Amino acid sequence: MNQHENYQKLLSIQVDNALLGTSAAVLGWDQEVMMPKGAIGWRARQLGLLAGLHHERSTTEEIGELLQACEEDQVLTGAPRSAEATNLRMWRRDYDKATRLPASLVKEIAETRSHAQSAWAKAKEENDFSVFLPFLEKNLELARREAECYGPPEGGELWDALADNYEPGTRAKDLTELFTPLRDRLTALIQEVQSKGSPPDTSFNEVPVPKPRQDKLGRLVLEAMGYDFCHGRLDESAHPFTTSFSPADVRITTRYQEGLFLDALGSTMHEGGHALYEQGLPMEHAGTPMAEAASLGIHESQSRLWENMVGHSRSFWGWCTPLVHDILGGGLTGYDAETFYKGSNRVQPSLIRVEADEATYNLHIIVRFEIELMLFRDQLQPKDLPAAWNKLYRDLLGVEVPNDSKGCLQDIHWSLGSFGYFPTYTLGNLYAAQFFAKMEEDLGPQDQAFAKGEFAPLLGWLREKIHSQGSRYFPGELCEQVTGKKLSPEPFFTYLEKKVRETNRL
Amino acid sequence: MNQHENYQKLLSIQVDNALLGTSAAVLGWDQEVMMPKGAIGWRARQLGLLAGLHHERSTTEEIGELLQACEEDQVLTGAPRSAEATNLRMWRRDYDKATRLPASLVKEIAETRSHAQSAWAKAKEENDFSVFLPFLEKNLELARREAECYGPPEGGELWDALADNYEPGTRAKDLTELFTPLRDRLTALIQEVQSKGSPPDTSFNEVPVPKPRQDKLGRLVLEAMGYDFCHGRLDESAHPFTTSFSPADVRITTRYQEGLFLDALGSTMHEGGHALYEQGLPMEHAGTPMAEAASLGIHESQSRLWENMVGHSRSFWGWCTPLVHDILGGGLTGYDAETFYKGSNRVQPSLIRVEADEATYNLHIIVRFEIELMLFRDQLQPKDLPAAWNKLYRDLLGVEVPNDSKGCLQDIHWSLGSFGYFPTYTLGNLYAAQFFAKMEEDLGPQDQAFAKGEFAPLLGWLREKIHSQGSRYFPGELCEQVTGKKLSPEPFFTYLEKKVRETNRL
Repeated sequence: MNQHENYQKLLSIQVDNALLGTSAAVLGWDQEVMMPKGAIGWRARQLGLLAGLHHERSTTEEIGELLQACEEDQVLTGAPRSAEATNLRMWRRDYDKATRLPASLVKEIAETRSHAQSAWAKAKEENDFSVFLPFLEKNLELARREAECYGPPEGGELWDALADNYEPGTRAKDLTELFTPLRDRLTALIQEVQSKGSPPDTSFNEVPVPKPRQDKLGRLVLEAMGYDFCHGRLDESAHPFTTSFSPADVRITTRYQEGLFLDALGSTMHEGGHALYEQGLPMEHAGTPMAEAASLGIHESQSRLWENMVGHSRSFWGWCTPLVHDILGGGLTGYDAETFYKGSNRVQPSLIRVEADEATYNLHIIVRFEIELMLFRDQLQPKDLPAAWNKLYRDLLGVEVPNDSKGCLQDIHWSLGSFGYFPTYTLGNLYAAQFFAKMEEDLGPQDQAFAKGEFAPLLGWLREKIHSQGSRYFPGELCEQVTGKKLSPEPFFTYLEKKVRETNRL
Repeated sequence: MNQHENYQKLLSIQVDNALLGTSAAVLGWDQEVMMPKGAIGWRARQLGLLAGLHHERSTTEEIGELLQACEEDQVLTGAPRSAEATNLRMWRRDYDKATRLPASLVKEIAETRSHAQSAWAKAKEENDFSVFLPFLEKNLELARREAECYGPPEGGELWDALADNYEPGTRAKDLTELFTPLRDRLTALIQEVQSKGSPPDTSFNEVPVPKPRQDKLGRLVLEAMGYDFCHGRLDESAHPFTTSFSPADVRITTRYQEGLFLDALGSTMHEGGHALYEQGLPMEHAGTPMAEAASLGIHESQSRLWENMVGHSRSFWGWCTPLVHDILGGGLTGYDAETFYKGSNRVQPSLIRVEADEATYNLHIIVRFEIELMLFRDQLQPKDLPAAWNKLYRDLLGVEVPNDSKGCLQDIHWSLGSFGYFPTYTLGNLYAAQFFAKMEEDLGPQDQAFAKGEFAPLLGWLREKIHSQGSRYFPGELCEQVTGKKLSPEPFFTYLEKKVRETNRL
């Protein structure tokens, strides 16, 4: 076979594996959104079979041989940003990761996580950390073994090898450099709000609004954002999420509560931001890394940009307020755009990450990041997690944690063994601000457009600079490519401070 | 390996294949009911991959060797109705069928059918048989080649080998014996209705009823029938269907039209009958023939039993009429139970099979059966299909076919190459009547129970006698086992004639 044939053969195998993987994703979506309750047993077995088949077919010797043959060909790899070179680079990455884990470890991890997740749910419900502790210890041990299989990057540490699963190339050292000034400036700003600000009115978010009306508003906003319902759909689920089977089928879910329309709208715009990224990936490369997101951090930058930088802006509310009056009606007609704008930016330290405002949110993440590093560096024993957690919440957010359910048991991630994941949320916020600033530098301020419900210029810019690039760049490289600069907390802090001072009357 | 190990190994392979096959079925359901329109391209590729994988993994030499080893063991096969013997018998059947078809033919069939279906849709829309003719010829040629791979059964003919795909063990000769007296008696009865009867009032079926109300009524009736929403769901789709991923997840769809509430209710009960069968298959055998329906004819007996023998009975309307008044309301409160009962049994020869009443329906099937036999016996050329069709409709139903769209192009089956399929519909009607008569022999008349909405005794009997049996018996054997007699048109005709005379005032 010549190199062209090798690449075509490899491409065909990999696209088939993507077809298989995305078939499992359809079953996953169905399970969360449509499946009758009593069907879980058979569904778990279907997903188990598909996962096993996918792993088996992604780790064959044939793939290894084809990869090596292609990599030796300058025609394919000579231009590192070509589709071929990008795919080969990312396939190699995935192949090495998958083949370095012994099957016995993969199996042990899968089995343990299923039990750990149940134990965590029980521990959270019963507010009993001791129920979860042995599983946390086991998950940590397995995560260490997984990280050792990959090996820490040169000059890096063990934790980095796990974080790399979610954010290719990321390291604890670099994150510490980014997060330390952010932590200091955020705590100072929040303390200033607490002591000198006066909280904006948020009583509109207690007005009951029937679900069908919230749904109608959400769809209208999604359409204005540019979400394509011909290649997606919106449903309700217990926890909002986005799933993509290809750029031609990207589905989102949201959650409606009668008394919290702002939360549902925020969730819808957040998932809409994720979905716009997935719909904007190049369909002609579907099933290959060229049509995959660059990282979870970049993904989160898209969701947070639409949720916060658009959805919490004065100009957005200028456009959306008449729609709220018209569609949600009832008790909301008495609130004006300025009230919605200010209320959606209220800063208020609290216990729960997923309910946090834009200013305090990153401190919730930094708590988790610091704890993970202490755990992996053997500076903290799992049994001492609650005490460490509660101390960091006191120090960073100024709140007392009343119990572990509202403390270190609130998130599912560690029960799934997802260590190294949390920082991608804050990376998303930082990327979003840096991208948004660059977008306004390129296109000019967007306030007037947003105030008319015109988001096409913004979406067009994101499509060109980020969505269409797929995995061509590692996230850090993409940031430099798009903005001309390394990622920095500066644009985020500048953006945030201005808005917080304006809306919380400092 | 000892025999026990051989069987366990084979069982594990076959259940895995069932997990794979039912995963594809989830994607199929999603495509019809949930998928956004623009997603069809990737979905077709997903389903293509899954079908290929399934075929590949169902036809391995390993399966052949394991089958042979198990078949040689009296412990497994000695009791022919044991779960092990049943599974081995049906696995052998499927394996031989699948391995007798060369991969090249399987591929040619799949490719041709996709084009043939498009051509058929175009031909039907444009009322132009010549568009479909070349594809019909090709489909027939492929079907012949497929049948030749299987070989006709001893003493049988080529067509039998195809019909066996849907109704194991069925033969044209036996069907002709069953259908000929049925044909004669039905045409005589229908002529009598036409000349002497007076048609019952069906004006209630023109009263517009909003979809949500029809949906509410449908769900209530399904629940009364015993359909378990914890292991299923009801949705809308273009064509009503039932799909099962396991007995724990059996989903139905129906179709609502504002002016035809009786049709929607009939569809819902029909699919509900299919679904009760699937939900009643033994879950402990999920993924094996022991948890599969005995045949399409037996399947159709369950749907037709609930749709017609229950849903068109006087006692059913005694129970259902107050619900119709209450839930559908509006213009329907002026109609009483007797009117609904009689109207739902109106006999009226017509052009379209899927709209036909219980008396004329089987003549639509007999037309198709006779035409298929003529085609396979080389007594009819495909180009002469329209003329043969129109003549049979004139002779059997007394109607003039105005064009091919309402004639020989009305059904999708031949475009899919599904020759041998149509008779299962009439077999279903005959089985239903024979089962129902035996059920009343065993349990006593059910009128009083139905009139109170009590269908549990009926369902319990079906569960014990039919559903729980899976594929333990071939359909003809099952009929003898359950009713003590071979299948006969007598019970159907007795049931039908009584009702038709009563409702069409002969």
